[in-house]
Amino acid sequence: MKRLSTSDSHFKTQFASLLANRGNDERRVVEPVRNILDDVRTRGDVALCDYTARFDRLTLTPEQLRISAEEIRSEAARVSSELMDALKLAAKRIEAFHKAQIPQDIDFTDDQGIRLGMRWTALDAVGLYVPGGKAAYPSSVLMNALPAKVAGVKRIAMCVPTPDGVLNPLVLAAAHLCGVDEIYRVGGAQAVGAMAYGTHQIAPVDRIVGPGNAFVAEAKRQVFGHVGIDSIAGPSEVVVVADENNDPRLVAIDLLAQAEHDEQAQSILITTHSAFAEAVGNAVLNELKTLPRSKIASQSWENHGAIIVVKNLDEAADIVNQLAPEHLEILLDEPRLFSENIRHAGAIFMGRYCPEALGDYVGGPNHVLPTSRTARFASGLSVFDFIKRTTSIETNRNGLKAIGPAGVSLAKAEGLDAHALSLSLRLDN
Amino acid sequence: MKRLSTSDSHFKTQFASLLANRGNDERRVVEPVRNILDDVRTRGDVALCDYTARFDRLTLTPEQLRISAEEIRSEAARVSSELMDALKLAAKRIEAFHKAQIPQDIDFTDDQGIRLGMRWTALDAVGLYVPGGKAAYPSSVLMNALPAKVAGVKRIAMCVPTPDGVLNPLVLAAAHLCGVDEIYRVGGAQAVGAMAYGTHQIAPVDRIVGPGNAFVAEAKRQVFGHVGIDSIAGPSEVVVVADENNDPRLVAIDLLAQAEHDEQAQSILITTHSAFAEAVGNAVLNELKTLPRSKIASQSWENHGAIIVVKNLDEAADIVNQLAPEHLEILLDEPRLFSENIRHAGAIFMGRYCPEALGDYVGGPNHVLPTSRTARFASGLSVFDFIKRTTSIETNRNGLKAIGPAGVSLAKAEGLDAHALSLSLRLDN
Repeated sequence: MKRLSTSDSHFKTQFASLLANRGNDERRVVEPVRNILDDVRTRGDVALCDYTARFDRLTLTPEQLRISAEEIRSEAARVSSELMDALKLAAKRIEAFHKAQIPQDIDFTDDQGIRLGMRWTALDAVGLYVPGGKAAYPSSVLMNALPAKVAGVKRIAMCVPTPDGVLNPLVLAAAHLCGVDEIYRVGGAQAVGAMAYGTHQIAPVDRIVGPGNAFVAEAKRQVFGHVGIDSIAGPSEVVVVADENNDPRLVAIDLLAQAEHDEQAQSILITTHSAFAEAVGNAVLNELKTLPRSKIASQSWENHGAIIVVKNLDEAADIVNQLAPEHLEILLDEPRLFSENIRHAGAIFMGRYCPEALGDYVGGPNHVLPTSRTARFASGLSVFDFIKRTTSIETNRNGLKAIGPAGVSLAKAEGLDAHALSLSLRLDN
Repeated sequence: MKRLSTSDSHFKTQFASLLANRGNDERRVVEPVRNILDDVRTRGDVALCDYTARFDRLTLTPEQLRISAEEIRSEAARVSSELMDALKLAAKRIEAFHKAQIPQDIDFTDDQGIRLGMRWTALDAVGLYVPGGKAAYPSSVLMNALPAKVAGVKRIAMCVPTPDGVLNPLVLAAAHLCGVDEIYRVGGAQAVGAMAYGTHQIAPVDRIVGPGNAFVAEAKRQVFGHVGIDSIAGPSEVVVVADENNDPRLVAIDLLAQAEHDEQAQSILITTHSAFAEAVGNAVLNELKTLPRSKIASQSWENHGAIIVVKNLDEAADIVNQLAPEHLEILLDEPRLFSENIRHAGAIFMGRYCPEALGDYVGGPNHVLPTSRTARFASGLSVFDFIKRTTSIETNRNGLKAIGPAGVSLAKAEGLDAHALSLSLRLDN
């Protein structure tokens, strides 16, 4: 863990090293992923079965790639009713928030009598990647599938690796709850390739979303353009801005809730009060003694954690904007006042009773958020990921006469004579 | 040019070949681009000067990379007042349409007393790539810069190659009109690298937009994630749906207006009337005799052009949706009725007096649009490319008590104990 203070003369250098990319260099996977994608394009389902045998130790025929309705039902039935209720509450709140995102179309006739429009329509088909192993979170299934549903996407296909053939009841229950029943036991770059290019068993989709390991991320990067993709997620991060009127233990737990995700995660506390900073640092070490995932969390905290003492809250806001964090907790008396100075953050959690974990599950807004400072230009997953815009222009002869001549001038200046003609012939008509 | 008819038994196969990707395989540029980007990261402005000497035959010192205010003014002054007026009309209309896109924030308190929000904010800095040579269009400068301005982006940097040191007065006039005065005479992958990673002379930006050649496209693909990028543009295309009550010559000109862009462009006519189809085909050949860019246009028409005769307009709409064209002209009596069945298109032009060229310049909506069937999942450039969302949750103790317990259950089920604790400790508080 790094201790920084804006009063320190070395602050700038130390802070710059905090901003450095925590992701690994993924160049080593570029060629292997290219080969897998080429193979899936060429050999289709046979390639999928080969890779599944090799990576997941699971022998399948092409017909067995899809998880049957009966398997989904019986696995989902193993989930306790308490958990099902929790999933349902989460789903209801996520759905409600994302419904509020549905944007308005544009349709107006301007003073030249030209009717201009912009219409939003849903994608036809979306592919949802769900990782296997330790990062297979049912909450992520809800967060990825429900915005697509709300957007009006008709077909949602899901790929999830099942190492050694073991199904994850919670993941299947979450998918079932969202009405997703087209699920394939395929993972890795091969799953991305199948959804992008299509195989005999898996019809191609228009956009692929969902987190994954380095192979999945590189595969998404390579199929980008042929299909749409969501942003490529880096390690998770939280910035907590807290005054001394917080319980140091609660702040420590919030920092560790981020750190327990993975060793590359980053938790940063910003506070004006150096004794409080000290208390939180001690509380983190104390909690690490009993936290079940302490091995992961302590690596994250040791290597990437930081406590920054600032002179005032303006400095704090400035630092937050430079960090552009995925998650920002504001544990102050007037959190909204502070938030007004934040230009770059994926999601903000306001108030002492609003920890980030609330947003991971049941808050309503999406928990798929821009990482690694990309909140400077990117946004969390939303209904906007599953709709697209078509603009329109409609005019009669009068409208054309009003604005067409300027178009003719510009087309001629650009040396595009057929463009100019298509306007001028109609103007003379 | 291909003649297709939906009544033909080979229609499906023939149509499938129309859908095939017209883009070149860009793998050959992957390594050269990677080397250029690495070089720009390492050597900064010195690398930029080296590549500019090599590719643009122009020797510069780092201080000369930026085009001076005096150069911009004097070049812009060479543009005729007629053209300046045309640019101004275009700018005014583009600005007005994009202002209508500015979305609403979300802010509501739900029935549990939890305040949920989503706020749109502008990007800090955007880089605009403008190609040199034949594709240096002033209209594209307006279409890229104005949405960023309307969105509230404070810094817009522009890179444009100037082969042999020759400046393009129209491009500089368009930039000047948009208030863009930070312009560098740098092109290619090296320009993308400079804007993404920053050099001593060129501060880094958050998102890079604008068209370019294969090197520029691959460079954008490689810096994606570190900065945002717009979609990677393929060759341009138009689909014209026309009945027999159109002048075949006008339809032919509209098809050629697309074909004259470049050899890979694609123009497709869809009509129910085979004699009309014949007449348009002949008119295209006739116009090619006199069209200045006939060499480019005839290659495009010969290799990628098509006329499809359909039985009825329902079939026409179905084919349009499969093509997901960048531009769709509807030259029918009731264009709006037909447009209601279109799910996938970048931009629609409705009515016999509304050719696509109107939208290239002065219509108002953006002319940077999704190509190569990507309208299935992508949209034209807009204000949305220059803003991003921050969601927020604010709750007090009561709100947490209402929904927190479900979060605890889910966190425990996912094996994330610090997540569970951050909620449960506050619930007990």
